[in-house]
Amino acid sequence: MAKRVVIAVGGNAILQPHQAPTFEAQLRNVQVTAAQIAKVEAMDYEIVLTHGNGPQVGNVLQQNDIAKDVVPPFPLDACNSETQGSIGYMLEQSLKNTLNRQKSSANVVTFLTQVEVDPADPAFKKPTKPVGVFYSEEEAKKLQVDKGWDMVEDAGRGWRRVVPSPSPLRIHGVDAIVHLLEQNMMVVAGGGGGIPVYQNSQGEIEGLEAVIDKDRTGCKLAQQVDADVFMILTDVSNVCVNYGTPDQKAFKSISVDEAQQYLDEGQFAAGSMGPKVESAIAFAKSGKTAIICALDEADLALRGKAGTQISVYN
Amino acid sequence: MAKRVVIAVGGNAILQPHQAPTFEAQLRNVQVTAAQIAKVEAMDYEIVLTHGNGPQVGNVLQQNDIAKDVVPPFPLDACNSETQGSIGYMLEQSLKNTLNRQKSSANVVTFLTQVEVDPADPAFKKPTKPVGVFYSEEEAKKLQVDKGWDMVEDAGRGWRRVVPSPSPLRIHGVDAIVHLLEQNMMVVAGGGGGIPVYQNSQGEIEGLEAVIDKDRTGCKLAQQVDADVFMILTDVSNVCVNYGTPDQKAFKSISVDEAQQYLDEGQFAAGSMGPKVESAIAFAKSGKTAIICALDEADLALRGKAGTQISVYN
Repeated sequence: MAKRVVIAVGGNAILQPHQAPTFEAQLRNVQVTAAQIAKVEAMDYEIVLTHGNGPQVGNVLQQNDIAKDVVPPFPLDACNSETQGSIGYMLEQSLKNTLNRQKSSANVVTFLTQVEVDPADPAFKKPTKPVGVFYSEEEAKKLQVDKGWDMVEDAGRGWRRVVPSPSPLRIHGVDAIVHLLEQNMMVVAGGGGGIPVYQNSQGEIEGLEAVIDKDRTGCKLAQQVDADVFMILTDVSNVCVNYGTPDQKAFKSISVDEAQQYLDEGQFAAGSMGPKVESAIAFAKSGKTAIICALDEADLALRGKAGTQISVYN
Repeated sequence: MAKRVVIAVGGNAILQPHQAPTFEAQLRNVQVTAAQIAKVEAMDYEIVLTHGNGPQVGNVLQQNDIAKDVVPPFPLDACNSETQGSIGYMLEQSLKNTLNRQKSSANVVTFLTQVEVDPADPAFKKPTKPVGVFYSEEEAKKLQVDKGWDMVEDAGRGWRRVVPSPSPLRIHGVDAIVHLLEQNMMVVAGGGGGIPVYQNSQGEIEGLEAVIDKDRTGCKLAQQVDADVFMILTDVSNVCVNYGTPDQKAFKSISVDEAQQYLDEGQFAAGSMGPKVESAIAFAKSGKTAIICALDEADLALRGKAGTQISVYN
């Protein structure tokens, strides 16, 4: 029976920081990413692919802000849904072309994905995730009053809105994803960490302005689809401690306990390797394997020849 | 066995022409639409829902244009994918809430949908569909040269880009849609007529800047999923001839041949009832039933108590 893997790719797999965010540049990057994912498909894995949307939702927010006097801006949850559309389109198209070239019979489908969060999540008490454009202090104070936004000064670059980053509680559409995996389809889902929603007091689903970390959503997705492996693709080959110092040590494998210890020591950068290791631990705790590796070593890492394997037993 | 229906709702079901296009206003309209679709679900139909995106993609194009010096504008196919995201989100959320209220066990999923067109489609020789913002004559001429856009003067309101409106050839993801319908899921797909793509000379799928009519895509979708009924919801109760004159006649049912005759006579407005009747005829030709009716009479129309039924036999 085919093994099942959930693969999370970062925003960098879609847009490099130095690149102009044209559609063409992003599509070319996505094509490179797709070629790597297709190598995993050729190893007979069932694949759910999830992705970040940081730069892309930033651009949508910027367009919304600049055009706000003509087109009423959308809330953050709706902006996220727009990026699930555009990034999903690029991924699905590129994956289909790559699979077709390698004569695979697999198909690819892309779901819009709402992700429920707990309205009592402590993240709502302390918004920490900066989103959208930079404002002057005056504009920031006005937005604080007019829209109730939380604003912070961002490292001398200006004022920015911060939103909560709650944990994913329940990912929608998992039954559908599992059905289609079993039909030889690759599934793209949970993009940008998912569209954040919650159940209100009437039991209805409602959107909210927050950002869910894509690695946490990837982990939850891997748990909900009962994946054998949860894999996070990034731009470094291994999880390292003492990163960037003469004592740097890269791990081929690491136990959940040891990884947790390094995480607690602050060895992994917040907003970068930190949430990746945290999500890998959360998945591997159940006795399965999590992998963190470079985008272009995904197939090697699944063969145990690259990357860092995180598991209960080292 | 449950009957299968493909339902196409127009852009007006999401945004009325007089309304400011806020997310909140659109969500309220979509909630009203969802309540009508849920009545059909309660009649034990398998439902594929498809929708227009005219006003929404217009707004995305406008945001792209206004912010173009800061964020590189996306091509039209990518803008379409963004609206599949935002409209699909509103529809899926509203449908889930309505189905939940009526204690339905059905779930709802939303697919991104690419639709292949024929690059030899005569529509590419004669772009006719106006999209995006209005320009001055000078700007229009410059865009014609710089970007190779086709520009036309639009009824004294300024110059606009026109794009081809080719016919849908093949809708992607149909196998997945059918699998999920059989699993008691309602499927939202083919939004905005679908993201237009074609197979290039290397056999690869590639996007193109065009608009596919949502009723034509609905018809093709109904054919591909082997629907029993293809239903187009609009803002009038019946197909009429001599519309708006003392001789106006509304049809409860009409044969394919008779409808074709009236269509050829120019009884139905281009860009409005015309493409609806054309798509209804194309579906009904095979011996099945097409229905054109008002949004709030969908359930009655399926019971034969409202709307216009188009079939081979009158």
